[in-house]
Amino acid sequence: PESKLPEVGTTIFSVMSALAADKKAVNLGQGFPDFSCDPALPTMVTQAMADNYNQYPPMPGMPQLREQIAAKIKSIYGHAYDVNTEITVTAGATQGILTVLLACVHVGDEVIVIEPAYDSYVPSIKLAGGIPVFVSMELGADGYTIPWDKVKASITDKTRLLMLNSPHNPTGSVLSVVDIAALTDIVRDTKVLIASDEVYEHMVFDGGRHESLSRYPELAERSFIISSFGKTYHVTGWKVGYVTAPAALMAEFRKVHQYNVFTVNTPMQVGLAQYMNNPAPYLELPDFYQKKRDLFRTGLANSRLRLLPCAGTYFQSVDYSAASNMTELDFARWLTTEIGVAAIPVSAFYKQGKESGIVRFCFAKQDATLQDALQRLQNI
Amino acid sequence: PESKLPEVGTTIFSVMSALAADKKAVNLGQGFPDFSCDPALPTMVTQAMADNYNQYPPMPGMPQLREQIAAKIKSIYGHAYDVNTEITVTAGATQGILTVLLACVHVGDEVIVIEPAYDSYVPSIKLAGGIPVFVSMELGADGYTIPWDKVKASITDKTRLLMLNSPHNPTGSVLSVVDIAALTDIVRDTKVLIASDEVYEHMVFDGGRHESLSRYPELAERSFIISSFGKTYHVTGWKVGYVTAPAALMAEFRKVHQYNVFTVNTPMQVGLAQYMNNPAPYLELPDFYQKKRDLFRTGLANSRLRLLPCAGTYFQSVDYSAASNMTELDFARWLTTEIGVAAIPVSAFYKQGKESGIVRFCFAKQDATLQDALQRLQNI
Ligand SMILES: CSCCC(=O)C(=O)O
Ligand SMILES: CSCCC(=O)C(=O)O
Repeated sequence: PESKLPEVGTTIFSVMSALAADKKAVNLGQGFPDFSCDPALPTMVTQAMADNYNQYPPMPGMPQLREQIAAKIKSIYGHAYDVNTEITVTAGATQGILTVLLACVHVGDEVIVIEPAYDSYVPSIKLAGGIPVFVSMELGADGYTIPWDKVKASITDKTRLLMLNSPHNPTGSVLSVVDIAALTDIVRDTKVLIASDEVYEHMVFDGGRHESLSRYPELAERSFIISSFGKTYHVTGWKVGYVTAPAALMAEFRKVHQYNVFTVNTPMQVGLAQYMNNPAPYLELPDFYQKKRDLFRTGLANSRLRLLPCAGTYFQSVDYSAASNMTELDFARWLTTEIGVAAIPVSAFYKQGKESGIVRFCFAKQDATLQDALQRLQNI
Repeated sequence: PESKLPEVGTTIFSVMSALAADKKAVNLGQGFPDFSCDPALPTMVTQAMADNYNQYPPMPGMPQLREQIAAKIKSIYGHAYDVNTEITVTAGATQGILTVLLACVHVGDEVIVIEPAYDSYVPSIKLAGGIPVFVSMELGADGYTIPWDKVKASITDKTRLLMLNSPHNPTGSVLSVVDIAALTDIVRDTKVLIASDEVYEHMVFDGGRHESLSRYPELAERSFIISSFGKTYHVTGWKVGYVTAPAALMAEFRKVHQYNVFTVNTPMQVGLAQYMNNPAPYLELPDFYQKKRDLFRTGLANSRLRLLPCAGTYFQSVDYSAASNMTELDFARWLTTEIGVAAIPVSAFYKQGKESGIVRFCFAKQDATLQDALQRLQNI
C-alpha cells in the first residue's frame, strides 16, 4: 500500500551534512556546535553511571531534573509549573513535538503552521491524522513577522492547535510583546491549543528578552512548551529535552509519551540535573552567541550576501539574490561544492518549496571555523 | 474534546514500582535488573563523551554501531542486513514499535495482537489509526502456545500487520520451529507484515535457540525485528535499541523515525558499538539468567504458587489459585503490601483484563534479592 508520508524524503539537514562531509566544506548547514560542551557536564554523567543510575527512570523523568526545570522556569519566566504533573522529560524536542500532536490532534483536526516552519511539524501533524493549515510570515525591512490577522482568519471550528516557534528557526525572528497581545486576543474565547517550540529560548540578543508563553497565564493555560538541553548546553547528540503544560494537557501528553519512548536516558538526566545547579551557562548564552553572530555578520557586511535581521537563535539568514538567481537548493549545493561552505535553503521550510532567494547559515561554530567560512564566502 | 487514548492510565509497571517503593517491598514487578552493568560499558561511554561524540549522530544511527549489529545478527541468525539501509538505532524498543506502527498502519487497518501482550502494543496501534484484532494464547500443560488456526482465521483483507513477541513477555514462552512453520504457511500469499519484538533474544534457556524471524528469509522479507540493548546489557535506563527490516520497509520506518526522535544519544551509541566487539556478554547471558530462573523456581517449588514453564525472558509466571481467589491486581497489591514482594498481574496484558489467577515475577535480580523475596513468599 501507499506510504504514510509519500512526500517525505531525507531531511534537508542530513542531506546537506552529508554533502558537506563529502566535499570537505565548512558545515554551516545543520544546526549543531562544532565545539565541545563544558567538560563538567560529561563528568556528571560519568558519575551518574558509576552511581548506578542505569535503569529506567520514572516515566515523566528524574524528579531532580524536573525540579531544576521548574525552578529555572519560575526564576526566568515567573510561572510555577507543578513538578509532578506539569513537566515531562523527552528524548529531544522533536519527540516532544510529535508526542504533543499525537496526544491532541484527532483525525481531520486542523493545525495552523506558520511558514517557514521547522521540517518536522507537517509530517508530525499528518502522522497524527491532522490537516496542516498554512500562514506565511511576511518579510519586511524589520525582518520576518507573523500576520496575526491571517492567523485569526485561518481559525475554524476544526482548528485544534496552533504551532509556534520563537526564537524562530530559520528566520531568527522573536515574538514581541505586541505579538503576544495579538495572539492572546486571537485565542481568547476559542478552544485552540498552542504548541510553542522554544528550543532557542536562551539565544535572544541585543538585550531583548524571550517572550516564553509561560510568562502569560492566559496563554500558558492552553500551551505545551517544548525546550531542549541539546541546544542550550552544546550537546545536540544527547537528545534530552522537555515539555511543560498544565496538568490536564500533560496527562494526555504522558499517555502517548509512555508508549512512545516510555522514558529518557537516566544517566544523562541525572548529570543534567546536577549541571543545572549553576545557572551561569544559560544566563551567559545570549552573550556567547551574540558575539558569534556579530563576528559572522561583520564578516559578511561587505559581501554580496544581504544580511537579514537576527534577533535570536544560532541561525543567520542571507538574501543572495544580488549574487545569483539559482534556486535556493541549487545555491546551497553550489555554495557547498564550489565555495566550500554548506548552508540550508529556506525553501525547505515551506510546504510548497517557496523560493525567496534566501539561505540559512548556522553560526554555532568556533570563531576559527566562522573565519574560515567567511574567507571562503568572500569569493561569491 | 475527548482523549486520543481514553482507556489509558499509568502503565502497570510504573504503578507497581511506585507501590513497591512506598511499601519497601522487594520489587519483582517491573522488568529491570537491580545489579550493575559491566563497568567496562560506562567507561566506553565516558571515553566517547571525552572524544567529543556529543553532537547529532547520523539519523539511522552511528555507522560503527550498525556494523556491530549487522555482524551479530549475521553470526547468530545467518541473515545479512545491509548496514546502510536495513538497520536503524532507536531510543529503546518501545519507540521502535510505535514507529513501525505509525509507518505502516493506515486509518482502519487491522493489526493482529496475540494476548497476553505487552501493554504498549494496543495504544500504539490506536495512535496509528489501526484496529487491534485479538487472538489469545492457550494455556496447557506445556505452558502458553499460539493457536495458529485462530491467527489464520483472523486475517482479513484489512489485516496490515501481525505483532509477535518471542521470547514472550509475560509468559516466558518461545516460538518453536513448529510455530515458525505454521506462521510461514499463514502469511505466504498474503501482504501481512510482521513486527517481531525480540528484545529478550539473548534469554532462551535449557539449550533452546531463539527462533529470530531473521533466520527465515520468507519471514524476514516482511518483518520488522525489534531489539534492545537495555535488556541485554543490564542498562534499561539507557534507552537504546534497534530495528531491522528489508530496505523498502526500513525506508518507510525512517520517514517516521526522523520526525519522531530524529536520532539517538550519540555517546551511548559509540560506547555500545565498542562494547559489542566482545560477544561474550550476550553469549553468556542465557546461562546467567538460567541460574537465576532456577534459583527462583527451586525456592518456590514447595510453595502454594504453581510455577508455569519458563523457556525464555527474565520473567517467571505463577498460578496463585491454590492460595487465593483475589483478582490478579488485588493479589499483586496484596503481595506487595502484605508479603513485601511486588509482582505484575498478567491481566494487565489483556485488553479485557482477563483473569487467569496468574502473576508475573521478574528474576533479573541479585541472588540475595531473590532469596529475600523467596523467604517472604514462603508466608503465602
Ligand atoms: C534535527 S537536525 C537539524 C538541527 C536543526 O534544528 C536545524 O538545523 O534546524
Ligand atoms: C517499560 S517498563 C516495563 C519493563 C518491561 O518490559 C516489563 O516489565 O514488562
